[in-house]
Amino acid sequence: MEAADIDCYLIPTSDYHDSEYVSGFFMVRKYFSGFTGSAGTLVVTAGEAALFTDGRYFIQAGEELSGTSIRLMKMGEPGVPTLKEYIDSVLSPGQTLGFDGRVVRADEAEDFEEILDKKQGRILWDCDLAEGIWKDRPPLPDQPVWILEDCCSGQSTAEKLKRVRERMEEEKADVHILTSLDDIAWLLNLRGSDVDYCPVFLSYAVIRMDQVLLFAGRAWPDEIRSYLEANGVEQRPYQDFYDYAAAIRGEKVLICRGRINYRLHRILKEHAEVIDRPNPTSMMKAVKNPVEIENLRKSHLKDGIAVTRFMYWLKNNAGKIPMTEVSAAEYLEQLRRKEEGFIEPSFETISAYGANGAIIHYSPKVEDCAQIRPYGLLMVDSGGHYREGTTDITRTFVLGEVTGEMKRHFTLVLRAMLRLKNTRFLYGCRGINLDIRAREVLWEQGMDYKHGTGHGVGYLLNVHEGPNSFRWKLMPDYQDNAVLEEGMVTTDEPGIYIEGSHGIRIENELLCRKGQKNEYGQFMYFEDLTCVPIDLDGVELSLLDETERKWLNEYHKEVYQRLEPYFTGKELAWLKEATRCI
Amino acid sequence: MEAADIDCYLIPTSDYHDSEYVSGFFMVRKYFSGFTGSAGTLVVTAGEAALFTDGRYFIQAGEELSGTSIRLMKMGEPGVPTLKEYIDSVLSPGQTLGFDGRVVRADEAEDFEEILDKKQGRILWDCDLAEGIWKDRPPLPDQPVWILEDCCSGQSTAEKLKRVRERMEEEKADVHILTSLDDIAWLLNLRGSDVDYCPVFLSYAVIRMDQVLLFAGRAWPDEIRSYLEANGVEQRPYQDFYDYAAAIRGEKVLICRGRINYRLHRILKEHAEVIDRPNPTSMMKAVKNPVEIENLRKSHLKDGIAVTRFMYWLKNNAGKIPMTEVSAAEYLEQLRRKEEGFIEPSFETISAYGANGAIIHYSPKVEDCAQIRPYGLLMVDSGGHYREGTTDITRTFVLGEVTGEMKRHFTLVLRAMLRLKNTRFLYGCRGINLDIRAREVLWEQGMDYKHGTGHGVGYLLNVHEGPNSFRWKLMPDYQDNAVLEEGMVTTDEPGIYIEGSHGIRIENELLCRKGQKNEYGQFMYFEDLTCVPIDLDGVELSLLDETERKWLNEYHKEVYQRLEPYFTGKELAWLKEATRCI
Repeated sequence: MEAADIDCYLIPTSDYHDSEYVSGFFMVRKYFSGFTGSAGTLVVTAGEAALFTDGRYFIQAGEELSGTSIRLMKMGEPGVPTLKEYIDSVLSPGQTLGFDGRVVRADEAEDFEEILDKKQGRILWDCDLAEGIWKDRPPLPDQPVWILEDCCSGQSTAEKLKRVRERMEEEKADVHILTSLDDIAWLLNLRGSDVDYCPVFLSYAVIRMDQVLLFAGRAWPDEIRSYLEANGVEQRPYQDFYDYAAAIRGEKVLICRGRINYRLHRILKEHAEVIDRPNPTSMMKAVKNPVEIENLRKSHLKDGIAVTRFMYWLKNNAGKIPMTEVSAAEYLEQLRRKEEGFIEPSFETISAYGANGAIIHYSPKVEDCAQIRPYGLLMVDSGGHYREGTTDITRTFVLGEVTGEMKRHFTLVLRAMLRLKNTRFLYGCRGINLDIRAREVLWEQGMDYKHGTGHGVGYLLNVHEGPNSFRWKLMPDYQDNAVLEEGMVTTDEPGIYIEGSHGIRIENELLCRKGQKNEYGQFMYFEDLTCVPIDLDGVELSLLDETERKWLNEYHKEVYQRLEPYFTGKELAWLKEATRCI
Repeated sequence: MEAADIDCYLIPTSDYHDSEYVSGFFMVRKYFSGFTGSAGTLVVTAGEAALFTDGRYFIQAGEELSGTSIRLMKMGEPGVPTLKEYIDSVLSPGQTLGFDGRVVRADEAEDFEEILDKKQGRILWDCDLAEGIWKDRPPLPDQPVWILEDCCSGQSTAEKLKRVRERMEEEKADVHILTSLDDIAWLLNLRGSDVDYCPVFLSYAVIRMDQVLLFAGRAWPDEIRSYLEANGVEQRPYQDFYDYAAAIRGEKVLICRGRINYRLHRILKEHAEVIDRPNPTSMMKAVKNPVEIENLRKSHLKDGIAVTRFMYWLKNNAGKIPMTEVSAAEYLEQLRRKEEGFIEPSFETISAYGANGAIIHYSPKVEDCAQIRPYGLLMVDSGGHYREGTTDITRTFVLGEVTGEMKRHFTLVLRAMLRLKNTRFLYGCRGINLDIRAREVLWEQGMDYKHGTGHGVGYLLNVHEGPNSFRWKLMPDYQDNAVLEEGMVTTDEPGIYIEGSHGIRIENELLCRKGQKNEYGQFMYFEDLTCVPIDLDGVELSLLDETERKWLNEYHKEVYQRLEPYFTGKELAWLKEATRCI
């Protein structure tokens, strides 16, 4: 920092494409801080280092940072400065803030510009300090790419390009630049595996009315090469992208400032006319088409079979055979791998026993994970990528004796989940309107969970993917606060986390559908995609009201009907009992 | 329009101060269209005239416009263009849109600028066509102004000015201009009666660090004159304001574009640097201070006594003595006038019998209002201004036999009202988060009401006053979507309206308060200000769940305890029965 004349250096958790999960090359924040969570920003000055992370990671970060001199900043807690306030406080007038502009989102950097403007300092946005320091840094990934057939995607790339170009015309744009990997993969019906748990590939795409350029650093196999040519896509080297962008002069460029990086934005602002709108592909891919919806029902059935088998195995074997958080997660993955079309897990499985359940995004390590015993709770949050789509499910399993408090909490979480998924609402609602349907159950008890109630899910893409979500805090539109459209998929996953004791989360994925239309408007409802029993051993019946009990029974009846053809003998008998009417 | 070379002329419903209710001088839209509702915009072209109004007025406007050639545009209905789309469709390239820039809000005119930009036409914003046409136009009002003592306001003007100037310093503003009459009246602790139902006076205020100018067109009595002088307020003529604003050069002027008119904004943009922020006074006056809160409890008790006496009279006399919607409303006003400190009704009483109840903002006229009979429902939405604050309450009364459907609907509305007011929530919630707590009850039945669930209430000011409200549609912050702060007052008034049959609305005012604070955050709850029984004759007991029944009984117990000292004999016996535990 001294050599580069930087007074304050930022290390966020991102790649050049605003991805949530990043490949090894981009794990700079983890390399310097030791904190392994999926979200956090390290801020380094001559005097101190501070790590900002959110409620999901307070406990985990506290543990991983203990023994270091890095200060943990619990974002959103009373008395804790925001990242912006902190940077404002550590920088003196005329000083320099440095970061790699490729790993900072354009809209987020606005805050920094404001601070440096005020202090008459400067932003050095072109420096990746890790380059000189991190000797054994992994290389940029270059994994195989494959074509998603129309029977899986439901729409050809030609059709998708046509829709995007129609939107470009509406916005009077000459050029549209996509840097978000999910948008590019969706548009081109291509998938890769450059990033763990996310079937995308490193690339940038430039779309014009008569041309598509794909900047990607790999030798394409013939099949892909001719597929791209057939779709009029020209290939360029990954590293040429910023030079190309800098050469755009006077044209109108459609980008989403909330999804591109600061470096690209600075470059474009110089010589082009920027039209800042949500990427047209964001909304298009969030609204699943009829083929995708039919496929999703299939992938969730497969996933349901695997997770239900896991549940049977777990409840019958806990305490009888050696079992750890990791081995249980591995067993679950084996069961998923048996299902046709399974590709990989859609995120790192959270298999959290006992007190570990209170660590919201816990990931067990072989060397120190917990043994699973025949009492208490095991929470398993997991999912799979199938050729027919992506799944995400959480169940909390009762493994024998549990306390009355645990049952009360289990039942509260269940009620919260049931209420949201059974909401009938008028078209026009956003997640911000509906979140309280789940959360009210906890708020009535003076409790809460420090995460959103749910997130959008991509189709064989990101397991967390907007623009839809269930959250109660007001965010800008592109930050997952979109109107809920028919065909959108959102998770419903409230929880309760008691530090040092237990954690409970129950999660279904919900497909938004049109209901009746009358003089009051278009009513909407949710269809359950997830098809796995909810552990009745955790339910305190007296805490459910009549309607909630009816909802639970209806759900279990449907689960049994869908799963029954795939189970036999003891497993089937157990399934019947596990989905019984209560 | 031909003479002025205008192709499309707009006549909104407003005065120069963005007031909701306007005095006779400003009722230009009513003069030209005959539509008497409180909201609507008339658009006139050579070919046709169209009136845009919202769901509250669909039925009323339909009736009042029938027989005219004016087209009714039901805003928000499927297939109905927005005002912007309509203007876009009627204007040809190069044409002129005209309006009086003083009665159009600066932020709303942005849409018009966009259209005219596109069409390379122009906006004529300096013409009030009514001036030449409307011969017997009433003069600008000039009613007495009086001082609100500190015992009522809870804070002196000197203290309020100090707070405003602190905010101006934070925003680095040289000048702050207030044109909204509620903000000016609150800041100066003055009240008037230039506008029906709203104790404000026509004026503009200019605040500098060392000077306050009050532009108001009246001869001040000595008491007010010396009060203003003591507070460093200089008086200027009302009509000098725009010239003064035009003379501001190079200074930083703090205004709220969402509350000033287009003419002022155009003038300021010319030579000053505009800082666009919500008026600091908006938030300050929405958060009631401890003196105001104590006073509000008193004014609501007085109001409760009057409305409860009215309920006793109504339920015992309907069908026995001649009674119309208007005479009943007059009787209620008489009862309010008996209460000490009563000033005037806070809005035009909605006294709607039978099918008239379905007209959301119905106002009965002596000549054709309905007779009240000993059956069916009477909805009365009314309120008062007291020296101790403003009230707003709706009750729907059962006057004998009602249908099973009416009872079902009454009970649904009651459940919706009870659920919202009993919500516990984390600090940070806005109305948009909580609205569904009321509306879900109706949405479950495939029903809805076409209005917000509630609005903020001023303190001896506007009965509708932001920035707080309960609504489900996302609006910009200054449009009543603020975080609910301790001390804010919001109404809770869901309804059901069946055209041609009946209308039901039940409304309490809620004071936002802090509840427990724990590791999850600061919890908030509502205190009932309104103190009037809910007519148990309308309640279908079997449709209430246990919790809802408990809430209703708790409310009635509290109502009885607060009112009991003021009632005797038969009235008291009736009150006990009317608030009985069910």
